[in-house]
Amino acid sequence: MDKDCIFCKIINGEIPSTKVYEDDEFLAFMDINPAVRGHTLVIPKYHCRNILDTPENVGKNFYNVISKVSNAVKKAFNAEGIYVFQQNENAAGQEVFHSHVHIIPRYKGDEFGKYSPPRLKVEIPEIAKDGEKIRQSF
Amino acid sequence: MDKDCIFCKIINGEIPSTKVYEDDEFLAFMDINPAVRGHTLVIPKYHCRNILDTPENVGKNFYNVISKVSNAVKKAFNAEGIYVFQQNENAAGQEVFHSHVHIIPRYKGDEFGKYSPPRLKVEIPEIAKDGEKIRQSF
Repeated sequence: MDKDCIFCKIINGEIPSTKVYEDDEFLAFMDINPAVRGHTLVIPKYHCRNILDTPENVGKNFYNVISKVSNAVKKAFNAEGIYVFQQNENAAGQEVFHSHVHIIPRYKGDEFGKYSPPRLKVEIPEIAKDGEKIRQSF
Repeated sequence: MDKDCIFCKIINGEIPSTKVYEDDEFLAFMDINPAVRGHTLVIPKYHCRNILDTPENVGKNFYNVISKVSNAVKKAFNAEGIYVFQQNENAAGQEVFHSHVHIIPRYKGDEFGKYSPPRLKVEIPEIAKDGEKIRQSF
């Protein structure tokens, strides 16, 4: 609990929200600035910044809750697909520094699909070098 | 294990890959068609389609593994942020139907940030109705 955090205030009811799911550890509610109708956020009640500093005991049930909410959003909006994303740190677009995952209903040929970045052409030996850098960073 | 699945073949070594992390349940390897350098995929070894059909016992450690690999990718590429996404079903951009999560190193003002969709203006009562639809879909 961080007394200045807008999502902590949503958790404790100090700021109103449209909640769609809640259990002891997680809360899901509607994004009030949606990219598409049905845009939903899932957050842990424990205040952490993002995926980079999430304690293991908090991460334990997170994916399964995102899965459960994703299925409900898909059903509610007759979606054909679900895009899930998390922006970690300002450079990745994060604006509220309480960990949150976005759930986006998708449809074939929808507007959202126009915002998919192109892929690079990188030779396999270069990719192997990138992998070596990552292996050495655990 | 699905005998026709390209990611199952990567798991069992039938198809080569640049692996960066592996444990009993998960594997992380470099995307050979990267959106940016350092683009990494994390997959469960259990063959499921995506987040919508992931069994609870498979989902249990998934977020913590994505967290661990995200931190390694950030360190290896001196990234300022990490973007994590999962495309579920073809309408959401999924091409390989073995569940996988993308990890993208991000930097302030990078190209990837240009592919961020705009937000809609939706009135709160409309958002509340959307939330009610989702609550009824669990």
